[in-house]
Amino acid sequence: MAFITLNELGENEIVPGFHGRFVHSEHVTLAFWDIDAGATLPDHAHAHEQIITHLVAGEFAFTLAGETRTLRAGSVVVIPGNVKHAGKAITPCRIIDAFYPARDDYRK
Amino acid sequence: MAFITLNELGENEIVPGFHGRFVHSEHVTLAFWDIDAGATLPDHAHAHEQIITHLVAGEFAFTLAGETRTLRAGSVVVIPGNVKHAGKAITPCRIIDAFYPARDDYRK
Repeated sequence: MAFITLNELGENEIVPGFHGRFVHSEHVTLAFWDIDAGATLPDHAHAHEQIITHLVAGEFAFTLAGETRTLRAGSVVVIPGNVKHAGKAITPCRIIDAFYPARDDYRK
Repeated sequence: MAFITLNELGENEIVPGFHGRFVHSEHVTLAFWDIDAGATLPDHAHAHEQIITHLVAGEFAFTLAGETRTLRAGSVVVIPGNVKHAGKAITPCRIIDAFYPARDDYRK
């Protein structure tokens, strides 16, 4: 499946209000999220060594290692592995995450 | 630099007409491209094992291993390492690429 159309991928609600579509290469997962206003990402960490979060649209209050910022279109956050992070969608949001290694837990 | 604003990153014209901004984690590079209409990506391949190309806006004729498709908003292409690919922007385009390993050649 080299050529993919996102709309044809099934949506998966991983956390309540977080609707994701996932594209995996061998080593990397891109997650395309549509997030409901008010949806909350609990404080968590994962062994995945790197995650890059890119806010496409909306406003998202993001807390990384105790520091909270409001992400807007064009905001990017680089999160090393095992660092706690949490957040809440202030408005409906579109976010793209890149994970390394690939999120095998998100594969079907 | 955990929190980044894309507009504050310098732009780098890697290939004529391909204006990129780059965010690196330890293992992954995200490239945010603004591409001029008519700009051409020559046929090439790289050892980087994976690249995921996500077309955000515009139309881009993309050739992967001899097969050409027109990418539009929501198109994604997964490219294994060392597989030849090429392309041409039919209209102005915005594209996000994910590379593994990180593109050290794109670091400043």
